[in-house]
Amino acid sequence: MPLMKSWVDSANTDTTDFPLNNLPYGAFLTEEGEQHCGVAIGDMILDITALEADGVLAVPDEEEVFFFGDWTEFMALGAGVWEGFRTAVTELLSADYADPQGLTEYMVPQVGTQLVLPFAVSEYTDFYASLNHASNVGTMFRGPENALPPNWLSIPIGYNGRASSVQVSGTDVRRPWGQLKAPDQELPVFAPCKRFDIELEMGAIVGQPSEGPVTVGEADDMIFGYVLLNDWSARDIQAWEYQPLGPFQSKATATTISPWIVPKAALEPFRCDTPERQRPLLDHLKEPGPMLYDIALEVGMAPEGGEETVISQTNYNQMYYSAAQQLAHHTTSGCPMSVGDLLGSGTISGVEKHQRGALLEITWGGKDPITLDSGETRTFIEDGDTLTLRGGAVGDGYRVGFGSCTAKVLPALDDPYKR
Amino acid sequence: MPLMKSWVDSANTDTTDFPLNNLPYGAFLTEEGEQHCGVAIGDMILDITALEADGVLAVPDEEEVFFFGDWTEFMALGAGVWEGFRTAVTELLSADYADPQGLTEYMVPQVGTQLVLPFAVSEYTDFYASLNHASNVGTMFRGPENALPPNWLSIPIGYNGRASSVQVSGTDVRRPWGQLKAPDQELPVFAPCKRFDIELEMGAIVGQPSEGPVTVGEADDMIFGYVLLNDWSARDIQAWEYQPLGPFQSKATATTISPWIVPKAALEPFRCDTPERQRPLLDHLKEPGPMLYDIALEVGMAPEGGEETVISQTNYNQMYYSAAQQLAHHTTSGCPMSVGDLLGSGTISGVEKHQRGALLEITWGGKDPITLDSGETRTFIEDGDTLTLRGGAVGDGYRVGFGSCTAKVLPALDDPYKR
Repeated sequence: MPLMKSWVDSANTDTTDFPLNNLPYGAFLTEEGEQHCGVAIGDMILDITALEADGVLAVPDEEEVFFFGDWTEFMALGAGVWEGFRTAVTELLSADYADPQGLTEYMVPQVGTQLVLPFAVSEYTDFYASLNHASNVGTMFRGPENALPPNWLSIPIGYNGRASSVQVSGTDVRRPWGQLKAPDQELPVFAPCKRFDIELEMGAIVGQPSEGPVTVGEADDMIFGYVLLNDWSARDIQAWEYQPLGPFQSKATATTISPWIVPKAALEPFRCDTPERQRPLLDHLKEPGPMLYDIALEVGMAPEGGEETVISQTNYNQMYYSAAQQLAHHTTSGCPMSVGDLLGSGTISGVEKHQRGALLEITWGGKDPITLDSGETRTFIEDGDTLTLRGGAVGDGYRVGFGSCTAKVLPALDDPYKR
Repeated sequence: MPLMKSWVDSANTDTTDFPLNNLPYGAFLTEEGEQHCGVAIGDMILDITALEADGVLAVPDEEEVFFFGDWTEFMALGAGVWEGFRTAVTELLSADYADPQGLTEYMVPQVGTQLVLPFAVSEYTDFYASLNHASNVGTMFRGPENALPPNWLSIPIGYNGRASSVQVSGTDVRRPWGQLKAPDQELPVFAPCKRFDIELEMGAIVGQPSEGPVTVGEADDMIFGYVLLNDWSARDIQAWEYQPLGPFQSKATATTISPWIVPKAALEPFRCDTPERQRPLLDHLKEPGPMLYDIALEVGMAPEGGEETVISQTNYNQMYYSAAQQLAHHTTSGCPMSVGDLLGSGTISGVEKHQRGALLEITWGGKDPITLDSGETRTFIEDGDTLTLRGGAVGDGYRVGFGSCTAKVLPALDDPYKR
């Protein structure tokens, strides 16, 4: 599929994240401070809440779906509504649309507009599903012969994360305190995290609920769209706490997502297969078709007041398990899934060093620092650093992107209990 | 404090769970099928939603707090409102109340009334905080010398559970399917769980939100009340999945809570200290006063159509960490806590075999079956078994109880993917 032309000129390039082929869902604050739903097009936002209020655009048989400036209610209406709405917005923004002038009052520039979380995160689950990442981390922690846990090739390993930690791109992240114990210490101390890290991930948003187990194909149908996701990780807190029941406070400080939810429909041309299985999967996890996506990803790091250096470049097609497989596994026990559940893919790492999605891997546990373009070196994140994830699927003369998923790391509080 | 007298006769005994000293919060369906908030008194329920609608009882400066038959909005109003409301209900139900006749239209018999979940569970966290339980399970899995993980005496170990799995007492539980791998098998199979188990726990309900880290004292102030909690556990699924990131599908089928939330105020007379520390705690986890409670607990098991046998008797005072300590730990990273968060205490086990809170421990991993009064034996739960938790704090001539936390286990589906 080639670039689809819009009457919004800035959408008709191969560099914008938001051509007519994309039309991702976000939320923003109006000049009056109201939260509205919006769709990104080029460097503008189409104000969906205002269009609905004025009767220009409506979901058939529904009222005030976008009134609260949140996409949750829309998601709950199901795939038929998603498709019809996308068709309607595509017509409004197409170069063929008869009356673009009549829509200018609904166009808001992206520059200078504050974006907010576009849906209510119901529950958040994070996975561990990149073979390269799991092998790297496993080698560091358990040695090369025990790198991959015995269950890894049979189960998309996941753990429940903390939904309340999810925030939108642009929100600062405060370096956490926690219990740390260095290998040469006998007892832990309570202190600011010294090994604060990113995890480059994609997030899949569940748009339809389930009650019993679902197949991989049914799971794929339940997914509404995708975001970029940075699962901030305190490695020193993690090392001391994670046995025997998994990561907890090391992952609870913040989880940053991109402001724009790219609809599954916009990613259709970029579907690809998961890699060849190293061990056959049980039937309930087999994919009926290609369920991964070819999405180029990168991470930029900028010191306070300095230029950004790209520290990682990889691709979502590196995952061993797709989001649909992860969601299917999530329901095997009968676990009920809800509209607004967010599934983190797990850190996405390629084979090469520059393709790794976490500083833990890139610097091999801090032993092999990286040098930024400014000449500064890094093992883990330092105060004032800004970390930015970007991603896009590249088509014929266009790119389907997510907007940047960015946050600055603020220093830890001197005393976290001082009010 | 002695038994407080009510004009509801059935509340004036030392056997009811619901004397005037208690006044726990629940939700029920009216004859018209509406969900209402209620307070238990003796064998009756006081219909709070109807009282508010008729203007007999109100939260000052608030309207329709109980309109939806859910206590979440009330919790969010804070401790001052909790106290004032409890005082008002105590007056209405006291033996001294001037016009009991005027309240009879608001009294609903408990027998024959369907109770429902009394609040919206925001997120659910489960802990691992009984020293006896951790030692028993650790010994079984890792041998006696490695029974307790190195961090256990420093951190109230917890993991995020699945809020969508929480259901009210009386809701059946379907035996789950999952990936299982016996030690002598090379590869897993997808099959119904064979080692389905209970975990006897208390649940603490967070009634006030937090943003940064909170002290143990502040955490105690945030707790609204307590419930009984059964964290159903599929031991064979757990054994195969839980390394390296913790329990996931093994704990996601169902989590049953008692229908009544006992307010913290009703438990005040039963506060007690956590046991002596085996290793000094870091300052941020030290308790400023007694934050555990003396609550006698038991588990009953009844085979299909048969009599119940009590299979465990223990006490909440056996916990090494209090809910306030767990909540304080939960916030150390800056993790935001929300109104309606539910914290499971972790399995509560005493020292003796009959004081253990899970079949895994009682039958020592299935090696030492128990015999029920009917003569049948059990290692884990069999289809048709009904498991019931009960708990109460025993005062001077009265008991503050939770109502029973009960559910029947239904057989696994023949084919979980058949629609």
